[in-house]
Amino acid sequence: MAYQPFTEQTVVDHVRALGLIEEGGIAQCEEIGDGNLNLVFRIRQGEQRLIVKQALPYAKVVGESWPLTLERAWIEQLALRQFAEVVPRFVPNVLGSDRTLAYTILEDLSDYEIVRTGYLEGKTYPELARHVGEFLGETLFATSDYAAGPIEKKRKEREYYNPELCDITEKLIFTDPYKDAESNNIEAALRPDVERLWHDKALKVEVAKLKVGFVTKHDALLHGDLHTGSIFATTQETKIIDPEFAFYGPFGFDVGQIIAHLTLATFHDPLKRFERFTDVLTVWETFEKTFRHNFTNAVEPFDTEGYVDDLLQTIFADTVGYAGCELIRRAIGLAGVADLETLPETTRLERKRDALALGTALIKERHEVDSIDDLVTLLSGVRV
Amino acid sequence: MAYQPFTEQTVVDHVRALGLIEEGGIAQCEEIGDGNLNLVFRIRQGEQRLIVKQALPYAKVVGESWPLTLERAWIEQLALRQFAEVVPRFVPNVLGSDRTLAYTILEDLSDYEIVRTGYLEGKTYPELARHVGEFLGETLFATSDYAAGPIEKKRKEREYYNPELCDITEKLIFTDPYKDAESNNIEAALRPDVERLWHDKALKVEVAKLKVGFVTKHDALLHGDLHTGSIFATTQETKIIDPEFAFYGPFGFDVGQIIAHLTLATFHDPLKRFERFTDVLTVWETFEKTFRHNFTNAVEPFDTEGYVDDLLQTIFADTVGYAGCELIRRAIGLAGVADLETLPETTRLERKRDALALGTALIKERHEVDSIDDLVTLLSGVRV
Repeated sequence: MAYQPFTEQTVVDHVRALGLIEEGGIAQCEEIGDGNLNLVFRIRQGEQRLIVKQALPYAKVVGESWPLTLERAWIEQLALRQFAEVVPRFVPNVLGSDRTLAYTILEDLSDYEIVRTGYLEGKTYPELARHVGEFLGETLFATSDYAAGPIEKKRKEREYYNPELCDITEKLIFTDPYKDAESNNIEAALRPDVERLWHDKALKVEVAKLKVGFVTKHDALLHGDLHTGSIFATTQETKIIDPEFAFYGPFGFDVGQIIAHLTLATFHDPLKRFERFTDVLTVWETFEKTFRHNFTNAVEPFDTEGYVDDLLQTIFADTVGYAGCELIRRAIGLAGVADLETLPETTRLERKRDALALGTALIKERHEVDSIDDLVTLLSGVRV
Repeated sequence: MAYQPFTEQTVVDHVRALGLIEEGGIAQCEEIGDGNLNLVFRIRQGEQRLIVKQALPYAKVVGESWPLTLERAWIEQLALRQFAEVVPRFVPNVLGSDRTLAYTILEDLSDYEIVRTGYLEGKTYPELARHVGEFLGETLFATSDYAAGPIEKKRKEREYYNPELCDITEKLIFTDPYKDAESNNIEAALRPDVERLWHDKALKVEVAKLKVGFVTKHDALLHGDLHTGSIFATTQETKIIDPEFAFYGPFGFDVGQIIAHLTLATFHDPLKRFERFTDVLTVWETFEKTFRHNFTNAVEPFDTEGYVDDLLQTIFADTVGYAGCELIRRAIGLAGVADLETLPETTRLERKRDALALGTALIKERHEVDSIDDLVTLLSGVRV
């Protein structure tokens, strides 16, 4: 069957034909996506509920539209199934998928909230940070050479051939914000700050290194886009969604991204600073503890006392650097975040300047930040 | 046509059917391989000469035999064709190849000598070091993200899926020499030295880092086995052969390997020390100059003054470390080298001890060796 976008009618017929909802009932179907990248259908019939997410063959951002591979739907369901092998409780169940039609059928998570939206409403998810740290410590370890061994890891890595989506990340995070690129979204009042950044040669060398690390270090399967909009949560449960950017990259990238977004949440809601920075601490500490624990069963490299300490030091420096890149690009790059964009102008500009300054510091000083406590001190701006 | 090994008769029929030698003539054919990994047929008819190299489905080393993927023949011809796109004068012409029959048809290089054999006979190849440096500077750059851009690079990298041969390298270079593995080939008199090495925890952590770099840093297409037995030369010309271990790995690996083998040549023939260490200098300097020159046209990352200096510093430290690993494994690992093995016992043991000591120093001190001059000083044992 050739690709075509579903309608609310055809998608119901399709899932019924697959036996996922019963014959003869009356199904309700609603398209709930934002229409920029994917169609998202919620289908209900009696007690049965499910989501069909179908990729569109283009991306729309800020009014522009460009073609985008449908293969990302296949990558997404591959990654979700891989994560489910390791930590089933942290991902939605995948009930079906089709490579040509570019859809994934998922457990409906209507009882959950998107964390970014929840944060904007002042909500709190007390288990979130621990769950995310555990998700990262488990999945990053399990898909690395340390757990899979080099042959199995290479076999798996091969399935995540995702050059187009990697290219988007490379451009939007590591390239465009550091030059006068059309894709940038720079508020006029910020122009002087941004031009200073563009003239900071030392910063640009460090960003180049982080970019090359992103492109060449194939440590483990990354989610690739782990911000607070990619996490569904309740007060008890956490589900990581939308890994269409999944690929084999450096351990520190996902960890850095989520830390940046927890920080951006404090920019929107300073009263929650203590909570969010405690979350940062918890994410890292849980990640580190989980990874270390798993490493006691590492198959690669040979048994080498002390190696894991060096490795975690490298991961931590990368984490700090990638968090810095994410802060900068969310202030001036193509894809803004509601945490900043919904602030009133004066505050918004201040916080974007903070994001640039903090991002720059994290990138340049990532090898001097010695511990997660140091990082939290830097993030919270309390330099004692 | 299903795989089967050629005979001297069937291979002639096959190349004749391909039109590579004329109908009706009388061809001479001789199998000249060592029979451990591949069949190598030299076919002559009148002025026409060619080589057919066919992979065998097993490897024989030290009397043992284990199955080995025929895919390595496909990887080898892919790599030779890739290198030929960049530096045609440094590789033999590929005249044909077949994935199922696992053969490559090559230009006959009977006028050339294998460099290791030539060195053992006291010969000199005055252009070799410059050519190898240029080969490395051109091919490593051309296949990296810096030249190919990330999308094209990922597409190419995908073709070099070579897990079995990578696994051999990983085991024989980075794992087995550092523990009491069956594959090792340790002379009884060296046992105390080797046990000291096995108890050197700091060394083992550094080897683990180099191993993980080998496995996870996908910088560029490597030859993967660049020793003096993989190079054909005359006094004027140089041809790199046998890239069956080709894969995307760290820039410094091939450079380090060839430097180790130039050093091993001095262990066999100390009178040529000055020549060989000058070659080491020339290999690095030519590599660096070529790479830097190419980098002025880099597409990735964004224009970043000073970045290439940092990059070359990293490549250099890796080079030093990988040279150290190669020295150690050639002294005690599965695959010995004639440079050492043909020495009389007393000298051989001394030189193997030198290889262990020098290898250890290179691995541990690779971040302190500041320049190629420092490296040559270390290699030549003249610590001033």
